[in-house]
Amino acid sequence: MENKIHLQDKLEKVRKNIEENKPLVHNITNYVTVNDCANIQLAFGGSPIMADSILEVEEVVSVCSSLVINIGTINERTIESMIRAGEMANLKEIPVILDPVGYGFTKLRTDGVDEILSKVKISVIKGNISEIKGLLKGNNDINGVDVSAGDKELTKEDIFEIAKKVSKIHNCVVAVTSKIDVVTDGERVVYLSNGNHVMSDITGTGCMISALLGVSLGGNKENIFMGTTYGVGIMGVCGEMAAKDMEKRELSKLKNNILDKIGSIKFEEFMEVLNYEYK
Amino acid sequence: MENKIHLQDKLEKVRKNIEENKPLVHNITNYVTVNDCANIQLAFGGSPIMADSILEVEEVVSVCSSLVINIGTINERTIESMIRAGEMANLKEIPVILDPVGYGFTKLRTDGVDEILSKVKISVIKGNISEIKGLLKGNNDINGVDVSAGDKELTKEDIFEIAKKVSKIHNCVVAVTSKIDVVTDGERVVYLSNGNHVMSDITGTGCMISALLGVSLGGNKENIFMGTTYGVGIMGVCGEMAAKDMEKRELSKLKNNILDKIGSIKFEEFMEVLNYEYK
Amino acid sequence: MENKIHLQDKLEKVRKNIEENKPLVHNITNYVTVNDCANIQLAFGGSPIMADSILEVEEVVSVCSSLVINIGTINERTIESMIRAGEMANLKEIPVILDPVGYGFTKLRTDGVDEILSKVKISVIKGNISEIKGLLKGNNDINGVDVSAGDKELTKEDIFEIAKKVSKIHNCVVAVTSKIDVVTDGERVVYLSNGNHVMSDITGTGCMISALLGVSLGGNKENIFMGTTYGVGIMGVCGEMAAKDMEKRELSKLKNNILDKIGSIKFEEFMEVLNYEYK
Repeated sequence: MENKIHLQDKLEKVRKNIEENKPLVHNITNYVTVNDCANIQLAFGGSPIMADSILEVEEVVSVCSSLVINIGTINERTIESMIRAGEMANLKEIPVILDPVGYGFTKLRTDGVDEILSKVKISVIKGNISEIKGLLKGNNDINGVDVSAGDKELTKEDIFEIAKKVSKIHNCVVAVTSKIDVVTDGERVVYLSNGNHVMSDITGTGCMISALLGVSLGGNKENIFMGTTYGVGIMGVCGEMAAKDMEKRELSKLKNNILDKIGSIKFEEFMEVLNYEYK
Repeated sequence: MENKIHLQDKLEKVRKNIEENKPLVHNITNYVTVNDCANIQLAFGGSPIMADSILEVEEVVSVCSSLVINIGTINERTIESMIRAGEMANLKEIPVILDPVGYGFTKLRTDGVDEILSKVKISVIKGNISEIKGLLKGNNDINGVDVSAGDKELTKEDIFEIAKKVSKIHNCVVAVTSKIDVVTDGERVVYLSNGNHVMSDITGTGCMISALLGVSLGGNKENIFMGTTYGVGIMGVCGEMAAKDMEKRELSKLKNNILDKIGSIKFEEFMEVLNYEYK
Repeated sequence: MENKIHLQDKLEKVRKNIEENKPLVHNITNYVTVNDCANIQLAFGGSPIMADSILEVEEVVSVCSSLVINIGTINERTIESMIRAGEMANLKEIPVILDPVGYGFTKLRTDGVDEILSKVKISVIKGNISEIKGLLKGNNDINGVDVSAGDKELTKEDIFEIAKKVSKIHNCVVAVTSKIDVVTDGERVVYLSNGNHVMSDITGTGCMISALLGVSLGGNKENIFMGTTYGVGIMGVCGEMAAKDMEKRELSKLKNNILDKIGSIKFEEFMEVLNYEYK
């Protein structure tokens, strides 16, 4: 109970900081879900800018409060822009969120993310368990994590162990989205168990979480861990509530409801539905 | 009646194969309707991947069950990716769906499609009658099809004749979307007369059909003809049902309803509404 | 009263011209809001084409009734396409609408727009007050407009003064979207005060206005001023009506409602809600 009030206070502060700052977020993202990402950032109280030309990304990011890098549809042109923008974000000391979509799937993605990680200091890596496990495997100095087990059989503690290692390698917060979401800074961990499996039947719920983190961290650069927890938590809570309103598998209704919930949920409602463990 | 039960059995098999395989579909498509295409593939039981960099398309398509090539916003960069992906799809023997958007409209589109067709074995070409007629005209060895008549005055039998010729030239199934949709493998033909004219007042219904074919054929590579019939049929049926729910010209409602119907329709409902002739 | 009937007649003519022409509009636009722009053009009675490859833009624009250039996500590739398409549009004497998204924000945007303006004759520039003020500052021969004052404190008369100057420099109609929208051809001015502040909480309402202008002017190239007034006015009216249907901050509902209103509003309804001053 103590713990609950403790977390509640911290998350409320995160929310207040978003409201007070209305963070401007620079997104270099994919063209599949970009519209949803922009809309969810607006709903969440941020202000999105999408720009990916190497001729302007440094100027754009210079005036922003955070940078979201999502490699969903990267190509030879955009990867350079991501690095340039990331370097400038580091110089300006604003948070950088990395969504390594499909890490380990193709050489372009794996090499691209590795290059970004080698040149840019990342604040949060947000991925599914396969992507996060991939990041661990990529590091040859690390032995032991059993990556042969089916991802779905991993317990939340297994996921935490993997996330913790990735967190230590890259000195950043790691958020793993799964049936139970895991957020860790390498020491502390929050387990979040909201959401609904039907959310994976609409495109972009993962991308939207990264977009939410852009807003959340844009207003909370002094508190990356709690900012990440709030961003991941709000998607789980709103997704769960949105799914409850469906009578059958009405996916457009689900998608629309998520945006409407994000845009209108009260903090008290959020805390009531939030299902978490904080250690 | 015999025929109806016959078709029903085949389509039910197609549906079952989709459910059992949850096909992974690689899409190289346009940025206008890409989000709708991803969502409709998920609704229909598939799993979409959008990737167009020449540095990764071969790897991506290698693990997929089908490839959808939609030239809606092609450029000098993406056309090469389409060909590379198509060649790899052929090597892996997975179905390739081609949507030659605007064939005959510009040199880039016409030459691009001709190049794709010369290098990649296509399983299904899906287009409107102007595009399909264009493909016929492009073949100088063919005489006789009267392309001067207004497209709208063509009977379904005229359309079948054109589609049959294109089918024989490219040795593939051809699906022509029109007031009455025509699907042929050069011998057999299915006429489908569902849908509603208002569907053309939202963008992407054509692209969504190609996307549905990606899913349908991804699970049915042994039965391209019936897979195509099911994919085209489901859009007609769901579009028709979606349009009936509109009280006036509420186009967002139409678009949302189509996705909801695709995601929730029962097979029996589908067969009840499906209006077809099979020869 | 006299004036009201006068404007009503002119706008009704604009509407009729759209209906009779179903204008084909070529859009070179951003990938964030492109789907919404296509759908709103269809809803408004137009027919959108999105194409940005330099290998085809001249051919595409040649058969269209208008061209919309929106620099929302320009890059080194698309800016050349915009200029080529614009030059061809001038040759064909069809209206060109320019949406200088973020003018003054980055060198790429500012130089890009300046280059477009130096090579292409624009019919309408549509922007927010910061962008339009930027265009004025860019012209070194002009002194005096106080750009240090906060944009929000500018009166509608101030905005008109700025817009009038930009209109004279570029010899075009200027539409400034603001709490009160201002449309001027350098002599006449219409002030439009519909809309709702919540519209800025969904992405793309600005882009959609430019898209609507593509349709409106595509059918009214002889009457750019009234065509612009109608395009800007319809968004304000439909946005205002759409916002009224929200019970709380339901942003997907707002977005959907706007499309539905644009697609179904009667002219009489439009005129009833339209709140304007015409001088």
